[in-house]
Amino acid sequence: MGVEEAFAKLCLTEKPSESTNVVKSLVFKPKTAKTATPVPIVVIALQSTSTPSPVIAKETALKDPRLARDELFQSFFQCESAKKFTLGYLCNVQSEFHLLIDAQLEALTDDMVVELNDSVFIKKEELFKFLSQFESSKSSVDFTQEVAKPEPKKSGVSNATSTISAALEDAKLIGITVDKGLDFSGWYQQILTKGEMLDYYDVSGCYILRPASYAIWEMIQKWFDEKIKSIGVQNAYFPMFVSSRVLEKEKDHVEGFAPEVAWVTRAGSSDLEEPIAIRPTSETVMYPYYAKWIRSYRDLPLKLNQWNSVVRWEFKHPQPFLRTREFLWQEGHTAHLTAEDAEAEVMQILDFYAGVYEELLAVPVVKGRKTEKEKFAGGDFTTTCEGYIPQTGRGIQGATSHHLGQNFSKMFNITVENPLGPEHPKVNVYQNSWGLSTRVIGVMVMIHSDNKGLVIPPRVSQQQAVVIPVGITKKTTDAQRSHIHESAKEVESRLKKAGIRIFGDYNDNYTPGWKFSQYELKGIPIRIEIGPKDIEKKQVVIVRRNDSNKYVVNLEELERRVPEILEELQKDLYSKAKESFDSHRVIVEDWKDFVPSLGKKNVILAPWCGETACEEDIKDSSAKKDDGEEYEQDEKAPSMGAKSLCIPFDQPKLRPGQKCIKCSLLARYYCMFGRSY
Amino acid sequence: MGVEEAFAKLCLTEKPSESTNVVKSLVFKPKTAKTATPVPIVVIALQSTSTPSPVIAKETALKDPRLARDELFQSFFQCESAKKFTLGYLCNVQSEFHLLIDAQLEALTDDMVVELNDSVFIKKEELFKFLSQFESSKSSVDFTQEVAKPEPKKSGVSNATSTISAALEDAKLIGITVDKGLDFSGWYQQILTKGEMLDYYDVSGCYILRPASYAIWEMIQKWFDEKIKSIGVQNAYFPMFVSSRVLEKEKDHVEGFAPEVAWVTRAGSSDLEEPIAIRPTSETVMYPYYAKWIRSYRDLPLKLNQWNSVVRWEFKHPQPFLRTREFLWQEGHTAHLTAEDAEAEVMQILDFYAGVYEELLAVPVVKGRKTEKEKFAGGDFTTTCEGYIPQTGRGIQGATSHHLGQNFSKMFNITVENPLGPEHPKVNVYQNSWGLSTRVIGVMVMIHSDNKGLVIPPRVSQQQAVVIPVGITKKTTDAQRSHIHESAKEVESRLKKAGIRIFGDYNDNYTPGWKFSQYELKGIPIRIEIGPKDIEKKQVVIVRRNDSNKYVVNLEELERRVPEILEELQKDLYSKAKESFDSHRVIVEDWKDFVPSLGKKNVILAPWCGETACEEDIKDSSAKKDDGEEYEQDEKAPSMGAKSLCIPFDQPKLRPGQKCIKCSLLARYYCMFGRSY
Repeated sequence: MGVEEAFAKLCLTEKPSESTNVVKSLVFKPKTAKTATPVPIVVIALQSTSTPSPVIAKETALKDPRLARDELFQSFFQCESAKKFTLGYLCNVQSEFHLLIDAQLEALTDDMVVELNDSVFIKKEELFKFLSQFESSKSSVDFTQEVAKPEPKKSGVSNATSTISAALEDAKLIGITVDKGLDFSGWYQQILTKGEMLDYYDVSGCYILRPASYAIWEMIQKWFDEKIKSIGVQNAYFPMFVSSRVLEKEKDHVEGFAPEVAWVTRAGSSDLEEPIAIRPTSETVMYPYYAKWIRSYRDLPLKLNQWNSVVRWEFKHPQPFLRTREFLWQEGHTAHLTAEDAEAEVMQILDFYAGVYEELLAVPVVKGRKTEKEKFAGGDFTTTCEGYIPQTGRGIQGATSHHLGQNFSKMFNITVENPLGPEHPKVNVYQNSWGLSTRVIGVMVMIHSDNKGLVIPPRVSQQQAVVIPVGITKKTTDAQRSHIHESAKEVESRLKKAGIRIFGDYNDNYTPGWKFSQYELKGIPIRIEIGPKDIEKKQVVIVRRNDSNKYVVNLEELERRVPEILEELQKDLYSKAKESFDSHRVIVEDWKDFVPSLGKKNVILAPWCGETACEEDIKDSSAKKDDGEEYEQDEKAPSMGAKSLCIPFDQPKLRPGQKCIKCSLLARYYCMFGRSY
Repeated sequence: MGVEEAFAKLCLTEKPSESTNVVKSLVFKPKTAKTATPVPIVVIALQSTSTPSPVIAKETALKDPRLARDELFQSFFQCESAKKFTLGYLCNVQSEFHLLIDAQLEALTDDMVVELNDSVFIKKEELFKFLSQFESSKSSVDFTQEVAKPEPKKSGVSNATSTISAALEDAKLIGITVDKGLDFSGWYQQILTKGEMLDYYDVSGCYILRPASYAIWEMIQKWFDEKIKSIGVQNAYFPMFVSSRVLEKEKDHVEGFAPEVAWVTRAGSSDLEEPIAIRPTSETVMYPYYAKWIRSYRDLPLKLNQWNSVVRWEFKHPQPFLRTREFLWQEGHTAHLTAEDAEAEVMQILDFYAGVYEELLAVPVVKGRKTEKEKFAGGDFTTTCEGYIPQTGRGIQGATSHHLGQNFSKMFNITVENPLGPEHPKVNVYQNSWGLSTRVIGVMVMIHSDNKGLVIPPRVSQQQAVVIPVGITKKTTDAQRSHIHESAKEVESRLKKAGIRIFGDYNDNYTPGWKFSQYELKGIPIRIEIGPKDIEKKQVVIVRRNDSNKYVVNLEELERRVPEILEELQKDLYSKAKESFDSHRVIVEDWKDFVPSLGKKNVILAPWCGETACEEDIKDSSAKKDDGEEYEQDEKAPSMGAKSLCIPFDQPKLRPGQKCIKCSLLARYYCMFGRSY
């Protein structure tokens, strides 16, 4: 075709060092009359730049730009499909188009190397030389600009009269400008940063957990910590550093982590004699000491846990909470005399993990066992909680609890005297390890939040309620105003005493409407409005964040009703998410239905043989045969094959003689497959 | 003298890389009849090897070896004093002596370089060549061996009849074998490891916090976290990595940390484009984001705290809890509109820190301000809690709370609009930072613990009480035995319900006496004994860990008396430590009394001019004029000059015209000086 050649010669042949900027190229089609020829918009931007549709619309003066279908790629670029598209195809264009270039990309230095789709690397200078041929179509865009959008209508809010005249000197447009359904990853990024949960950090792949998200982590810690202490686990702290000798002791295990290990080689201005690793997980950090401490079967079970951070220097595209180079987690490591005792604990911990998701975060999960291919390297078997993200139709691993068998205890020589007596051989202990990370927060955000901002389940939200005085107008006297404020503060104080995490916003410089938007953005579960009419009627108006449902609550019933409303909200979030997961978890028995069903954003329960080769075949076949989806936001997703998520404990019944969905072997069980994070 | 030359030629002239093993040489004198000539014992061992007197006694068949006085050095080695002693002086010896060599030192590879006192470096091979001339005196000793010591008498324990016949298959000698008064650092190490608070780790300078110490940290966290949240501080988490560009932004500040910063330069098998530092503290990590987040004075105060670990790759001799390369701490970072608001918080936090020491850890502290020389680099002033370790007579910095003024906010451009209006210039915020680390645990251990093991204040100990059935003999019937156990379990269960952290040890394979020693070693604040006579009399016997005081408590009064006894114990620990600190904090007004007073293990309150040059003079002069102490355990201590510890808030009154203790200037205040950790 020539196009690829022309472009390829500009590109580098070798993968450069890790700190490359990834560049995305997206093609949008504006809303056009059916008879007219559309003018496509090509957006070239840093992967990390969110490219909101309103900005694109404004810059091109075109209406409702949406990600283009394959047909447009075929007719306009002579390119087979969206996923095959590369910048080389720009040379094929015969008619008018818009080329929007991210100003942040332009700001890179000339010799910085960027990565285009499919691991193609190019110097920024060369990329812009190439793009210069499209000079007439080209414009530079600051995607961080704020685009005005109409003030959202406050339906169901009776007495919020927004007639304050004071200037809002620092009232900015704070709302979300990206649609969850249209640009999921852009939305996810905005909602986290504008909702003040997280901020981006100047070391790539690392993020700042701001108080709103850290508080959720603290609630999870408190809940889980009590649970594990109730079964005899104690907390401890092992160093973050591991010598290479120790790290590499368990071969199978370290192989899985080696490519992602960060190495300290220098301290002050001296080179260390031997590089020292930062723990990617602590099996090999801890087990030499287990060997030392465990002498007798009376020392068993030994159950230690630590709340810490680990480092996995991933080279894939990082994503807040889901894939980060440093993350917070807990890692439990236990040693037992018998396999039975260890296995019972594995299941107990998995139930606690499911509890974190279902009881605290209102996120439904499916419990099951990982396949041989997906299990923890070096362990006997891995159990898992698997979640589901409706917008992308992808599964997501929630937390894993591993039974390590005697593999590590043999490697590290963790033995006890045989309880039968010293004449019997020594016994290697049975071990488990289990971990839950801040990833849980990302899953929670993706599932519940919406275009108005975060939605946070009340059981884990830092603040559960905000009190906002309403109905103050120009005509309100100072005495009246003061009376409203006092009444609001009384509500706050009563509910605080009742154990509700509540605060009030009594700032007169902002309208109630502005405040409503602000706290909707931040995901405060309920707001409590109180104005002159409410005071008259001895009531407050309570509005739920998740669905704007409105409750009029008598002041006398405050302490009883508010906790109830919060609990109902918590349950409703869970039910809604569960309905969505349940309706997108479908049984498929014929391979021909597999990929189409994936395309409908389902995860699939399929009868399966359990063979690793077949699992790989399923992944490859589901990737190749996929034909893309119109509004898929993550470019990589459509090309991604289905992985096994888990073999659910809760199994549909196999028919006698039922075959594997993919190969000719007999099915051993149903396995859950899906695209995944 | 020739001796030093002879030895010096074996030594290296350059300081090698950092992973050198430090070697100590100690001289002991056995107990000898006054008329007899003593046979000295020279011990050459790794710094990290504890060299208990009982082992030395056993290996040499000599009685009561104690560290030798200067006279012995003079008469025997023709060496002026203990602190001037080097191995070269061995050549001067004319008569019999013992030379004990640490087997762990012998085990080093030949080309390993070791550090002798005073930064003299030598290859292990060369050292042993040199020592080979003393072949006839020389023996290799395994200092890790366990030396039998007589079972400690259980005075005041009435009914513990240790007549169980069952073999104690894994009863080992678990007690402390080093005297706190004679070998303080050996004692400290043993007490931590045998008390199961901490273990040594294979990366030098890093230690494992085992559950017994981590639980103390958790109690401190809980207490302090509630305090700071009550004044509006929120927790957050910032990444552990810092780019060099950001780290180096505040010059004064980074200078203090640069030599100790650990650098990550590699991930997997790829070199990073730029090395990335691990935070030594987070000022420069956090403040760029403070600049971003703080827009209006309404965003103030911003009060964030994080519980994390930081890394300072110190090259000095590490010490558990006190000087470690990675340590756990909390770091608070707050921004305020006014200096007054910031300064009030600095003091509030300092009070909380003093509360951690005094209320939780029963450790008295002196609050004050650091001198210009000792303050936090880059800040305006530093406040501190200073503690005191009686055995070494050294002061120890407890925790510091810094007022940073506007220094960082100017560097990082953290400004808000002027509350007076936009026509007024923008205002730089005022900042504080404050930190408390796991060092507190080391201070607590050093102060309260004794030769029987750990002593842990009840308010922070993981377990507050242990129930031990006693009085079970060979003649006890199964039914009686079972009745005693049931009664003991009833006591445990009642006290657990009453909120006491309690457990029982009902293992019949160990004698009560063995159990008593075990839990004394671990520092359980009280043990509760219950035997047949107690059951008869409806009572238990309670023994306090700290002083073996015995209480007979009527069963009916259990829930009332046990908390009382624990509280009294807590208070007694504090009073005893306070008395010791108070009696060793002396006012000295004449320089001639300064060094002698230091030598008596005092810290000194002296009238002082406040000049840095004078402070340095005091340090130098007190180091040079010091003439050593007989039983000083830490070789480096006698040569150490006195540093300023703080300018106490609680000031003795200066006389009019009173001069500085050292120079001719007028005294501005009393400053507390001392040797320190």
